[in-house]
Amino acid sequence: MDRFDYYIPTKVLFGSGRIDEVGKEVSLYGKKVMLASYDKELLQNIGIYNKVVEALKAEGLKIVEFYGIKSNPVISHVNKGAELARSEKIDVILAVGGGSVIDECKVISAGAFYKGDAWDFFNGAAEVRQTLPLVTILTIPATSSEMNSGAVITDDKTMHKSGFFNPGFFPKVSILDPAITFSLNQKLTAYAAADIISHLLEGYLTHKDVWAPIQDGLMETLMKAVIMSADRIQNDPEDLHARSTMMWAGSLAWNGLPISGVGPIGYPMHMFEHSLSAIYDIHHGAGMAVIMPGWMKYDCAIDNKRYILFARNVFGITEKDDIKAAFEGIEVFRNWLIDKGAPVSFEAAKLPTDEIDKLADDVVITANAWGMQDWYSRQVIIEIFKRCFV
Amino acid sequence: MDRFDYYIPTKVLFGSGRIDEVGKEVSLYGKKVMLASYDKELLQNIGIYNKVVEALKAEGLKIVEFYGIKSNPVISHVNKGAELARSEKIDVILAVGGGSVIDECKVISAGAFYKGDAWDFFNGAAEVRQTLPLVTILTIPATSSEMNSGAVITDDKTMHKSGFFNPGFFPKVSILDPAITFSLNQKLTAYAAADIISHLLEGYLTHKDVWAPIQDGLMETLMKAVIMSADRIQNDPEDLHARSTMMWAGSLAWNGLPISGVGPIGYPMHMFEHSLSAIYDIHHGAGMAVIMPGWMKYDCAIDNKRYILFARNVFGITEKDDIKAAFEGIEVFRNWLIDKGAPVSFEAAKLPTDEIDKLADDVVITANAWGMQDWYSRQVIIEIFKRCFV
Repeated sequence: MDRFDYYIPTKVLFGSGRIDEVGKEVSLYGKKVMLASYDKELLQNIGIYNKVVEALKAEGLKIVEFYGIKSNPVISHVNKGAELARSEKIDVILAVGGGSVIDECKVISAGAFYKGDAWDFFNGAAEVRQTLPLVTILTIPATSSEMNSGAVITDDKTMHKSGFFNPGFFPKVSILDPAITFSLNQKLTAYAAADIISHLLEGYLTHKDVWAPIQDGLMETLMKAVIMSADRIQNDPEDLHARSTMMWAGSLAWNGLPISGVGPIGYPMHMFEHSLSAIYDIHHGAGMAVIMPGWMKYDCAIDNKRYILFARNVFGITEKDDIKAAFEGIEVFRNWLIDKGAPVSFEAAKLPTDEIDKLADDVVITANAWGMQDWYSRQVIIEIFKRCFV
Repeated sequence: MDRFDYYIPTKVLFGSGRIDEVGKEVSLYGKKVMLASYDKELLQNIGIYNKVVEALKAEGLKIVEFYGIKSNPVISHVNKGAELARSEKIDVILAVGGGSVIDECKVISAGAFYKGDAWDFFNGAAEVRQTLPLVTILTIPATSSEMNSGAVITDDKTMHKSGFFNPGFFPKVSILDPAITFSLNQKLTAYAAADIISHLLEGYLTHKDVWAPIQDGLMETLMKAVIMSADRIQNDPEDLHARSTMMWAGSLAWNGLPISGVGPIGYPMHMFEHSLSAIYDIHHGAGMAVIMPGWMKYDCAIDNKRYILFARNVFGITEKDDIKAAFEGIEVFRNWLIDKGAPVSFEAAKLPTDEIDKLADDVVITANAWGMQDWYSRQVIIEIFKRCFV
């Protein structure tokens, strides 16, 4: 085990029906709330718009609605939100959505105190000095944004995706009401599952095989829990135990706990995927499904230690030959993703296969930004992308 | 999975050498610090007294030292600490010790704002309205007090032990420096391991067998990690990986995370043990070792479902007959405790076996206080104590 800092001051209210408590929680932070989401109709369709608005009004809150947040949120829209927060003198932001909505609202919460372009926070031209309090209602379990201090945004001028962490970005309260996710269709559920597992795999596969039984056990536990939950949801989308487990796994996977103490890790799969979703606007979870099996096969051929553990402890593979078992684990995982409905290749995701030069250029930019420039040459980046073809 | 609230705002600084950061952290909360612990000599013996005092002085902090906290801390000493905090106008408390020191400091932090007897907080005569900020340096991994909002104190007038949770009791910062615990002897290490496992077992064995793969997996992971760590420490007390894992397991075991979502649980083993340590002043971890195997055998005979899981998933028992496997798990656990050096019976702990009437009376008081009055009749309480004889 290695040293680490651990700090998650977010209060989580978890359980079916907890959404009714949103008014009381938001009212702790002010009188005027910005209700931010993808669009009003979506909130109406999943049956939560009226509930949320009534709960807020019952506490006498003034509501300013802000919509148009897209998956892979863009900085131009962040700037609009920040301008609205300033002009309306918003006290508190309520993000209702998945990681995209929460991430955008985090940056808006900082932009409310900064009149320049919010992209300045991403390129180092400005620092986050103050943020509005943020409350979240999670509608898609996937990114852990509801329980961490990170935010990822795409600059829609350059189509480059970037992110950073700031302690001011921790939500004050996150309401995790798994019954909300009953209406999440099989495809989106599969993307969410792929995203959650990808967060766990980054740490699990890239740590230096240090003795960390708590962390490895927790990561394996969470991966198995996601796999079992997704299987149950495929049979019954309204399985509350499975929706609950998927949601809580999503919050824990990337909130820092599983990797606390494993020492340095990398984010190679996210580095590749960021370029896919920035350039092609593919759903991030689908993009992770495209990248994972291909990258894992490449990486396993170099050092299979962690893949043997993955195969045996997550998928219970009993093949005696360790090397065969390691690759069998990747194959079983790949087939599981297909079975859930996630695309595991460029072709399956309908991405062009003749633009990997452009993708590689973008990955190189991310690698430099993330301090991973020594991991792969541009040529290897291209080779890895090719492993993600059919 | 069931509903839950999760909230742990404590910042954890974990790793060998982190103790050097204490000055900087404490100085965030004021100018005058109460340094509280068992006794000065102990801190000198384990080599941290000078480090702590120098780190505090380097930040210009004024130090008021307060010693004499005992394991199974008593309310009369809490009241002395609270008086000192008021008269010295203390800004922030630094607890250096195990769960006893941290628990006492939590109640002192509330007593600093209350002139009456601090026992009033325990019997409902007064409410905790305000607390001094608390920073902790953990010297014994066991209770999770460094990462939760609970405090347990004994009333030295009646020798009854009582505890409660209050959000104001969360430490602001907890420094977890596993190298400090190198000097913890085999016996105390065994007691700590028993205590940590007991915290996990309460939730693991008493939840209603709900489908909770994250929670069950995490509890099993933590129990296995404690067992492996204690085995390694027995061979090499300065095994940093093992000391680190034991320390982090200790913080997670009772911080609320493992049981978040498993629904209602009970604390039967703690209910029995509280009377042992209150009346006989036995080390709490040793008391847990005395109670656990006996209570588990009694409980397993009534419903073995959770014990089958414990045997198979924690100890890897392969006996095909489930009932046999369940009891074999308890036996293997009991023998493991003995091997580490923990007492697993009244006799081994040198406790009298002819006073269980008195013990039973005290357990009945605790059962009422904890809402567990329907769990066992007084007669069954006596029967369970007898199971803890050789």
